[in-house]
Amino acid sequence: VFHEPTWQHIQELFARRNRPCPERNRVQAMFPRGAEVLPNPLGTAPGIWMRWGDAVFAAMPGVPSEMKAMFEQEVRPRLLAAGLSAGVLVQRKLNTFGLGESQIEDKLADLTRRGHEPEVGITASDGTISLRIFVRAANLEEAKKVWEPVERTIRERLGNLVFGVDDEELQDAVVRLLQERRKTVATAESATAGLVAHRLALVPGASRCLLGGIVCYDPRIKIEEVGVPESVIREHTAVSAETAAFLAEGIRRRFRSDYGVSVVGYAGPEAGGGRHPVGTTYVAVAWEGGHRGHHFQWPGTREEIQSRMAKMALNALRLRLLEEAD
Amino acid sequence: VFHEPTWQHIQELFARRNRPCPERNRVQAMFPRGAEVLPNPLGTAPGIWMRWGDAVFAAMPGVPSEMKAMFEQEVRPRLLAAGLSAGVLVQRKLNTFGLGESQIEDKLADLTRRGHEPEVGITASDGTISLRIFVRAANLEEAKKVWEPVERTIRERLGNLVFGVDDEELQDAVVRLLQERRKTVATAESATAGLVAHRLALVPGASRCLLGGIVCYDPRIKIEEVGVPESVIREHTAVSAETAAFLAEGIRRRFRSDYGVSVVGYAGPEAGGGRHPVGTTYVAVAWEGGHRGHHFQWPGTREEIQSRMAKMALNALRLRLLEEAD
Repeated sequence: VFHEPTWQHIQELFARRNRPCPERNRVQAMFPRGAEVLPNPLGTAPGIWMRWGDAVFAAMPGVPSEMKAMFEQEVRPRLLAAGLSAGVLVQRKLNTFGLGESQIEDKLADLTRRGHEPEVGITASDGTISLRIFVRAANLEEAKKVWEPVERTIRERLGNLVFGVDDEELQDAVVRLLQERRKTVATAESATAGLVAHRLALVPGASRCLLGGIVCYDPRIKIEEVGVPESVIREHTAVSAETAAFLAEGIRRRFRSDYGVSVVGYAGPEAGGGRHPVGTTYVAVAWEGGHRGHHFQWPGTREEIQSRMAKMALNALRLRLLEEAD
Repeated sequence: VFHEPTWQHIQELFARRNRPCPERNRVQAMFPRGAEVLPNPLGTAPGIWMRWGDAVFAAMPGVPSEMKAMFEQEVRPRLLAAGLSAGVLVQRKLNTFGLGESQIEDKLADLTRRGHEPEVGITASDGTISLRIFVRAANLEEAKKVWEPVERTIRERLGNLVFGVDDEELQDAVVRLLQERRKTVATAESATAGLVAHRLALVPGASRCLLGGIVCYDPRIKIEEVGVPESVIREHTAVSAETAAFLAEGIRRRFRSDYGVSVVGYAGPEAGGGRHPVGTTYVAVAWEGGHRGHHFQWPGTREEIQSRMAKMALNALRLRLLEEAD
């Protein structure tokens, strides 16, 4: 059966994008008789909820972000209300940055060993090491009683290595800390070419703390736009602790932000001469009255290296913010 | 059996990262007797190639980028050499940007219909619409004879909408065009906050054409650093065709690049007042003697919207570069 409100929603979406709405999209407004329409605020394809005898059918769009939003907002509440749930299976995730998987595992060997209750797993993704606590219980409250003491132990042992839970990324932690303290940041990025600023801007409300930044990919831009003395680049090269420090301090002054963050390095695939293997990274954080640098070298593809460089810069700022709070 | 060169490679990787090499990593240098070691230039875990009677075992690391590189460099050639291949299955992919999935489908309905030989599929991912031609043949040469005429037809009908094949992204097309013409670009990004510059920097060799850019997230930065007149922002707001045009032209002059590219918009989740729904985007491209703006509105999550905004900016530059060539 044809569902007029859905067809109107589809036409509206096309109109807003200034595109003609093809007649073939009409089929997206057709539903099995007796079905409930699940609205899709993010796209044209609506979902379907339908009971058939003892069975429940839930159909969701194929675009992952649309499916996930619809599951959270429409399907999960209906599943719970339908009384189909036999207890909960909770995965509590603690995200860390700064040490490798095997080093984290060494600190938690008693928790991650096979047979430990609850089960604690360790996964690595793009430089972030996560601990996952799996709990099966009658309900969320009971589950919490199981995971909370384990989480406490992990946090005691890992301290500032833990930056967030579940889907939180380094930029979420940084934006939260900056907002709490009403502080601002500006970036000066060479090898990452804007990825640090972009990651901060992924967080809703980032406009309250991110002023902006300068992508100084070309050495000339480092000198002319961010104020790195030419002699520093000549003496130490553009990929050096010295250049990173001048960039962080330079962007902070220029944009009048509370913090300046910089990244220089070689993302590959070509290395920067014998002294600098691919993956060489220098990041720096500058604040009123000081600055600190970090140096690292990652293996990986160009894209992976750039991503980890950005994480390293975000983490350097996070550690500085935590240190100031102590 | 223990493989000394692998253990040395692992220790070397840790040493380069200034991290102690845990003893537990020694197990990564242990192999089944008779196995061939597949080197892993990107990480610590090597691969295994082993024949056992009629069977072939190939074990690869779990990190996707390491697995893919090892498959391409080590496993695929061995599989082909082992004479295990019974013909080829080729997927030729043509990537387009600028029209929606249903509009592309309307132009190619005769090719994408069920039963067409060869099969032509259409997929949408993050604003990019791709046509996939599937061919089964005795070898690559035979396969090519089948897909080439279909590819020609698609290109004739879609023209400049097609920007690349297989894994090529918009930034690959843009960097290639800029390098061919020895031209440079600089970016002024508000809503995308560095994503356009970062995408360009994902392409190896981008340093020959990307000078850098300014992330002008805060309105003050648009005025002070990129030279947008305050009156323009007051009259038209920061999210307008006018602001985008001044940003593109401003960054081009300031960085002395051949092209300037800008993005302003609302990435959400909050809209910018009634006139500006979430997803509203203005991009502009400036060159010696002119500039052009594009306006669009996408639905989606904040991350999706920012990604499509960046694609729109890259595509605007690509279209300008193609136009100049004509």
